[in-house]
Amino acid sequence: MPHPNRSNRSARTVIVGGVAGGMSAATRLRRLDESREIVVVERSGAVSFANCGLPYHVSGDIAERDALELQTPERLAERFRIDARVRTEAVAVDAAAKTVTVRNLDDGRTEQLAYDELVLSPGAAPRRPAADPGAPLFALRTLDDLDRIIERLGQPGGTGPAVVAGGGYIGVEMADALHRRGIAVTLVQRGTSLLGLDPEMSAPVADHLAGVGIDLRLGRAVARVGTDHVLLDDGERLPAGLVIAAMGVVPETALAASAGLKLGPAGGILVDDRHRTSDPSIFAIGDAAEKAHAAGGSRLVTLAGLANRHGRQVADVIAGRRVHVAPALGTAIVDAAGLTVASLGLGETQARAEGRAVRIVHAHPLSHAGYFPGARPMSLKLVIDADDDRILGAQAVGTDGVDTRIDVIATAAGAGVTASGLADVELAYAPQYGSAKDPVNMLGYIAGNLADGEDRTVQWHELDGEIARGAVLLDVRAEGQLAEGTIPGAEWIPVERLRERHAEFAGRPVIVHCRVGQGAHTAARLLTELGHDVRNLDGGYLSWRDGRRATELAGEARRAA
Amino acid sequence: MPHPNRSNRSARTVIVGGVAGGMSAATRLRRLDESREIVVVERSGAVSFANCGLPYHVSGDIAERDALELQTPERLAERFRIDARVRTEAVAVDAAAKTVTVRNLDDGRTEQLAYDELVLSPGAAPRRPAADPGAPLFALRTLDDLDRIIERLGQPGGTGPAVVAGGGYIGVEMADALHRRGIAVTLVQRGTSLLGLDPEMSAPVADHLAGVGIDLRLGRAVARVGTDHVLLDDGERLPAGLVIAAMGVVPETALAASAGLKLGPAGGILVDDRHRTSDPSIFAIGDAAEKAHAAGGSRLVTLAGLANRHGRQVADVIAGRRVHVAPALGTAIVDAAGLTVASLGLGETQARAEGRAVRIVHAHPLSHAGYFPGARPMSLKLVIDADDDRILGAQAVGTDGVDTRIDVIATAAGAGVTASGLADVELAYAPQYGSAKDPVNMLGYIAGNLADGEDRTVQWHELDGEIARGAVLLDVRAEGQLAEGTIPGAEWIPVERLRERHAEFAGRPVIVHCRVGQGAHTAARLLTELGHDVRNLDGGYLSWRDGRRATELAGEARRAA
Repeated sequence: MPHPNRSNRSARTVIVGGVAGGMSAATRLRRLDESREIVVVERSGAVSFANCGLPYHVSGDIAERDALELQTPERLAERFRIDARVRTEAVAVDAAAKTVTVRNLDDGRTEQLAYDELVLSPGAAPRRPAADPGAPLFALRTLDDLDRIIERLGQPGGTGPAVVAGGGYIGVEMADALHRRGIAVTLVQRGTSLLGLDPEMSAPVADHLAGVGIDLRLGRAVARVGTDHVLLDDGERLPAGLVIAAMGVVPETALAASAGLKLGPAGGILVDDRHRTSDPSIFAIGDAAEKAHAAGGSRLVTLAGLANRHGRQVADVIAGRRVHVAPALGTAIVDAAGLTVASLGLGETQARAEGRAVRIVHAHPLSHAGYFPGARPMSLKLVIDADDDRILGAQAVGTDGVDTRIDVIATAAGAGVTASGLADVELAYAPQYGSAKDPVNMLGYIAGNLADGEDRTVQWHELDGEIARGAVLLDVRAEGQLAEGTIPGAEWIPVERLRERHAEFAGRPVIVHCRVGQGAHTAARLLTELGHDVRNLDGGYLSWRDGRRATELAGEARRAA
Repeated sequence: MPHPNRSNRSARTVIVGGVAGGMSAATRLRRLDESREIVVVERSGAVSFANCGLPYHVSGDIAERDALELQTPERLAERFRIDARVRTEAVAVDAAAKTVTVRNLDDGRTEQLAYDELVLSPGAAPRRPAADPGAPLFALRTLDDLDRIIERLGQPGGTGPAVVAGGGYIGVEMADALHRRGIAVTLVQRGTSLLGLDPEMSAPVADHLAGVGIDLRLGRAVARVGTDHVLLDDGERLPAGLVIAAMGVVPETALAASAGLKLGPAGGILVDDRHRTSDPSIFAIGDAAEKAHAAGGSRLVTLAGLANRHGRQVADVIAGRRVHVAPALGTAIVDAAGLTVASLGLGETQARAEGRAVRIVHAHPLSHAGYFPGARPMSLKLVIDADDDRILGAQAVGTDGVDTRIDVIATAAGAGVTASGLADVELAYAPQYGSAKDPVNMLGYIAGNLADGEDRTVQWHELDGEIARGAVLLDVRAEGQLAEGTIPGAEWIPVERLRERHAEFAGRPVIVHCRVGQGAHTAARLLTELGHDVRNLDGGYLSWRDGRRATELAGEARRAA
């Protein structure tokens, strides 16, 4: 539909932001409509760069900076007839007049661009700690940011030690990247968990990072960045010639505000199920826009995959096509110095903070059949809505096979498969790839047993309380497994001896545990059949050990504070 | 419910077959019911062995034979109070009397076992070619079979060359295993495709196997096995000191016949949606039982994962629990001498043979983001029901990431996600693990474009006919891509030149192609917008090249025959 005031020319769509979401929108829109005028304005010096790849040029994995530039304005013009303008900032929107004011950052000149549809994909801005003038503080959002960091790294004599403020995805990637360049790195994380994980899932990751040589400050925050040091909130002063701000992001909403658009509860641009803002001619996608979330509500989910998908969808909407916008799960993955960490949805901590009734499942399976060489351990966690058995979240830490399992769980959760329904997922099995009972199926079996009331569990953080209330804790592992460690107060009776010895704890509530929860399930079923009141320690000794370690880490953080 | 004639004792379940399905049933049933008597009879010398691991002891990957024995009768008795009897064959069932006659294979003595429920999990028997007495012909089904092969391999002077009859999963695994032991191997396959793949997906696998040094005879069958050679049906005589029968399996139904049970259309034991046979006290699972198939009908699907799952379910049914038996997809995976090959559901060949209207999608994505080092190519194929957009089948060939993609597609298909719906699957993305637009999402986008009529495609095997009918074939690749090869008769016009040159082929139907189909999609959209009648060559040059190679292989097979 041409603009009412400009019916003598073709329709024009202006897209603000030329990376994941904006560029997907632009190219898709061109494929759907050859006649439309498409203008993309991008504040940085490049369009369509691989923002998720930036840390890997710092590390050296991606040797050539050019590999990160996926498109150029010239190629976009030639192939897609897109008018892509870099170093051009959209500074204001007049929604009534349907114009956007853009400023050329090189010559400072401004221009008014009329639009029929405006797509806002400006992204989100990194949070920055307070800093002295001249402090070597860098964020990592654009190729320009990357160039500044690389320049700093290349200065004569090097940078000296680095501090990374923030233990989220970018923080961990950058800490690893700098460390692998041979730079002494301290990672400062306000909370005691990394990467948005629950504490017992985070503890092994923290220990792994410390193990490779990254210094950690958990439960601490950067108070101020000086020219040659960082001051933490507990008064510690860390020498630093390079500081990375990776403390999360804030959606870029200034332009939306200038257009009078409504914001959502999480502070992002509010959109409907067609990516339309409160102004019918303006759409918003990417990190600046809130997403309908699979766990309910409207949330910020700053992921490239969603930005790309929603960019394509917004083009479909503009071209008059039907779209289905699936609620966001927030599926994410990161290489944490050789460990793979992945998650989706809500963690247990977050779900409980939201007042949700949840069931929790931990498992510690192998990446493939144990009888085939090379199987690697992983830890999986499922957060389940206790009311309807829905998968609210999942967390996974390991190496091989973590990506496959989180992708399968994400696919199932997105399709509405319940936690118990994971038992029915039919995955490919050969012994070097998986197991006849895949880890995902095992999660489904455990979840189903809980949902049916066949199995009852206690979590690692509930154990002390249960013992204090009189429960007897039975360690039902085989003798050869005890050397790995024991839980204080546990009595050892292997599964095979329970039938003859179960009268010893008659009348007392029983908690059974094994290494990972599976043998103890057999024990729990047996004791239930024999008339006992039994619960299984979810995730077994391994989850308890990880939980205890998390408690230690939190304690160290408190003592330091 | 106790047996009417034996109300003075606990109920007894007899399970015939003690490997995947039978053993899952036995242990689950014990967990659900401590009082029940559970008897497992197994004809071979071991229960609960890793049958999918057998080829990998031949190859040496699994060094210790003991690693393949997952349980012993002693451990099953101690932990689960299961009466597991090896070298014991069930020879007849009296369904009216509810007794099964079992014979001890060591002393030949028989016994009548009364049952309340009988679970048949006898598996399937390998098909064997005709053989002379004393011919070194071996199947690979049990540890006993494995021991015989290992003994043969260990004989003084070795075995000489080996012939593997059959190019399915076991055949390819065994050919690779023997080849890696340093034995000259010829793989004989009746059809011209391997592993149940469609021809263009199989051709690269055949070339890969030949490339590592496995001799192939496609379109040929073993006519007879002699004591020192194999005779093929075209008269060729191959010297052979070891011959593996891997020509598929026949469900073991003798016992079912003795019980008067109904068989299904595919020749397996017919069961209902609770694994119950035509006799209400007799259940059947595993390779002997037919499965309700996701693509419709009742079929044989001989996979360990399904046997395990159905074993667990049959225990639930016997214990009075509700179960949901999901239709089988037939998700399978194999390491073909370093290539990963995976599939589910129906291939195009099979679907068309069944008279189904299908849409086909080929893609050739990278295992992860191309800008991150180490991305590996793969080929994906989707077979889609043209009526309802259902995923009927998928095939995948590559290395890294093939397992993840087939598992995601299997999860989606099992959950009822349509082919177009794969666009919405939210997978974990970081550049070393995947792509912001994952290969699975790309399949969904392509499928959606086809379903919407936005894109029309031709298949590699339809191209010659279309050109003969007057279509012009345009190669829209960039100049640098032409060195990979060209399709005879194609005219080269890169996407970027189409706007200025499209009048050259006005009035003629156009087929566009690029390397994999993506650039040609942009070209097809552009030409459609410019008023042309356009189709895209699905899968681009790469699928056409693989299809041409498949045609060559079939031609060689015909000439030899």
